[in-house]
Amino acid sequence: MTPPITRDTCAALDAADTLAPLRDQFDLPEGVIYLDGNSLGVLPRATAGRVQDVIRREWGQDLIQSWNKAGWIDYPQRVGDKIARLVGGQPGEVIAADSTSLNLYKVLSVALASVRASDPDGRRRVIVSERDNFPTDLYIAESLARQHGFTLRLVETDEIAAQLTGTAGDALAVLMLTHVNYRTGRQHAMADVTAAAHAAGALVVWDLAHSAGAVPVDLNGCDADFAIGCGYKYLNGGPGSPAFLWVHPRHLARLGGDGKDALWQPLAGWMGHAAPFEFTPGYRPAAGVTGFLCGTPSAIALAALECGVDTVLAAEALGGMAAVRAKSLALTDLFSALVAQRCAGHGLTLQTPTEPALRGSQVSLYRDEGAYAIVQALIARGVVGDYRAPGILRFGFTPLYLRFADVWDAVEHLVQVLQTGEWREERFHQRAAVT
Amino acid sequence: MTPPITRDTCAALDAADTLAPLRDQFDLPEGVIYLDGNSLGVLPRATAGRVQDVIRREWGQDLIQSWNKAGWIDYPQRVGDKIARLVGGQPGEVIAADSTSLNLYKVLSVALASVRASDPDGRRRVIVSERDNFPTDLYIAESLARQHGFTLRLVETDEIAAQLTGTAGDALAVLMLTHVNYRTGRQHAMADVTAAAHAAGALVVWDLAHSAGAVPVDLNGCDADFAIGCGYKYLNGGPGSPAFLWVHPRHLARLGGDGKDALWQPLAGWMGHAAPFEFTPGYRPAAGVTGFLCGTPSAIALAALECGVDTVLAAEALGGMAAVRAKSLALTDLFSALVAQRCAGHGLTLQTPTEPALRGSQVSLYRDEGAYAIVQALIARGVVGDYRAPGILRFGFTPLYLRFADVWDAVEHLVQVLQTGEWREERFHQRAAVT
Repeated sequence: MTPPITRDTCAALDAADTLAPLRDQFDLPEGVIYLDGNSLGVLPRATAGRVQDVIRREWGQDLIQSWNKAGWIDYPQRVGDKIARLVGGQPGEVIAADSTSLNLYKVLSVALASVRASDPDGRRRVIVSERDNFPTDLYIAESLARQHGFTLRLVETDEIAAQLTGTAGDALAVLMLTHVNYRTGRQHAMADVTAAAHAAGALVVWDLAHSAGAVPVDLNGCDADFAIGCGYKYLNGGPGSPAFLWVHPRHLARLGGDGKDALWQPLAGWMGHAAPFEFTPGYRPAAGVTGFLCGTPSAIALAALECGVDTVLAAEALGGMAAVRAKSLALTDLFSALVAQRCAGHGLTLQTPTEPALRGSQVSLYRDEGAYAIVQALIARGVVGDYRAPGILRFGFTPLYLRFADVWDAVEHLVQVLQTGEWREERFHQRAAVT
Repeated sequence: MTPPITRDTCAALDAADTLAPLRDQFDLPEGVIYLDGNSLGVLPRATAGRVQDVIRREWGQDLIQSWNKAGWIDYPQRVGDKIARLVGGQPGEVIAADSTSLNLYKVLSVALASVRASDPDGRRRVIVSERDNFPTDLYIAESLARQHGFTLRLVETDEIAAQLTGTAGDALAVLMLTHVNYRTGRQHAMADVTAAAHAAGALVVWDLAHSAGAVPVDLNGCDADFAIGCGYKYLNGGPGSPAFLWVHPRHLARLGGDGKDALWQPLAGWMGHAAPFEFTPGYRPAAGVTGFLCGTPSAIALAALECGVDTVLAAEALGGMAAVRAKSLALTDLFSALVAQRCAGHGLTLQTPTEPALRGSQVSLYRDEGAYAIVQALIARGVVGDYRAPGILRFGFTPLYLRFADVWDAVEHLVQVLQTGEWREERFHQRAAVT
């Protein structure tokens, strides 16, 4: 029988943690154990100073000259190249711009246009996704399906495989999945799923919102078609940070032209034009991923995102994403084990797969009653997770700044909240606008 | 005969300027006369501190709670309501979000969908705009026209009227114009043009990129249909600031539904959903202008934009946009008069209409030879304007911080650049990426 885990066990894990120095990169609030980096990453120490420099010097002093002098003009590509290192992309395949939703609109549009071009008879007109995918992805897909005569078919996770074979597979245009599910933390096997979709003749769009900076991703290695991701979660880019997108070179190579059959991403703004400063009336997409830009990029927001991405890239010298992943699994294993050891009989059910390959960097617990209030009671104690309907207590584990002892302390608070029943207090049941 | 203008004339105008106190709102670089606020507005004094507060306290300390506590969740609407005061909108009609290009994509999509719904036989399938409109507007319109079977017809300014009558008027779906032209500074008569387009049975989309904060705009008074505008020019929101959009209530009221005939804006992201935190799979647009949001807003970028908008709203106590307009016209009149008085024989032609009603807040000069280099030589002397192909020297006049004596000094430098011929130096002919 395994001896029970103690706080000393956790402290020993911290003492041996080769990633421990990365915590110093962040300004963390006193007295808070932050298990919500999967919703909004914490503030890097470098960000405030760097943003001040963009505002006071680049904008305030150098003004319009900073488009050249400070390189604002290719900031989306520069930050994109850094993000590429975290997701298995090559330089020139990623841009940081706009929001995740907008980037999905761009890449899914191109995916649908590619299918229409290669399948003019309209046999493939189904987009498959998970019913439990993050809703904004489903909304964007619904919008594009309505516009272009496709059907959005939502299935349960265990029904995906059946969509990739037989008559369903013959009708499949695009498989659109989020790599790590936002509620359950379940992770798809990207390489296998991509290969199966390709075997069915379909394209694959991956949403990396809960993957980039949290779990290893190898987009080129998996031969994926398109990917998008979020800047403000594990990349620590700040609230509403620009998002990113990746496009496989085989699709980048096909974009272009100006005739009726030209393949464009539809958000055809001037920053994606081949020569924006020629100010010519006809749209010609820029070569490569630059053609996926639309409007003028926010230098301030990109500076903050770059600082956040740099905090993850700092792990490269300490083992990179493999080391981040190892610590992530150790943190989530520890949390699950402590919940099992110390919260038995309190009605909590583990929602996240125990198998490492199926797990992202979070643990979700389900409880029939009081899940929202328990989360609020924990927040009042300084343990910040969040609630996701229905009944989910969601805890994100960000290896760059979380300690094993933090996990112990978080579970200690959870035990106390459950044992005292303090979550039944009325104040913990009042719903805010954003949950 | 009018006596020649002197620097003393200008200094006297400054002494009498009731808007002069507004200059103290800005951090202006030493030794620079900035005539490019129509490209990138200057830095408000309040911005750096406010952004620091968003970063260090709202993000760094309060983290995810700031979505409620700091009101990040309705920041686009709050800043939108402030912008509404500058363009003749009512509260609830404007949001600040995304880029100008993206906002045009949203409103033009809805305009085209409205036309398709009211004209199922397809008689009205032409979008008319000016060939000299800012290219990103034309690119977005071209993209939507291709997708939805419309024709984008580009005409010269003096050909617009003919598009609003007869058979051309019968085919007209949408008239899409920029209120003040980015190159020439020419201003359309918004009320008259809108009325003429409506008489033809068409909808009108106005781009206010060079109007908001610079010239009075009364969208409701003109009975316009849709408008978009830029945050980083006269609104001083910083490089790549969020843009804004306005929708007339009669169009807002028609948006909604979830069937095949539902009228949505197509960038249907979760922040435009009726209940984003219910995380339900089907898209239902939020009521009102909130339905035009897409992804997660950038709190940092919106904070900077709000500081910029506040610098324009500060004029409300000093006569508002009418006073701003009066000073703007006085500044541009003075510049044109000084160029006529002091630069005669140097080959400069005025491109901007002399009639006040046809003029925005800029003056553009044309020169056959050396326009680019003359602009660079002026910049080297601290007089910052910009160049726009072909042959345009463009000077923006922002009444919030420019002095009449600055206009004198700018023309003095122009005289010297022309008289010395220093613009012929090779260094002034090297083209940068961004011009």
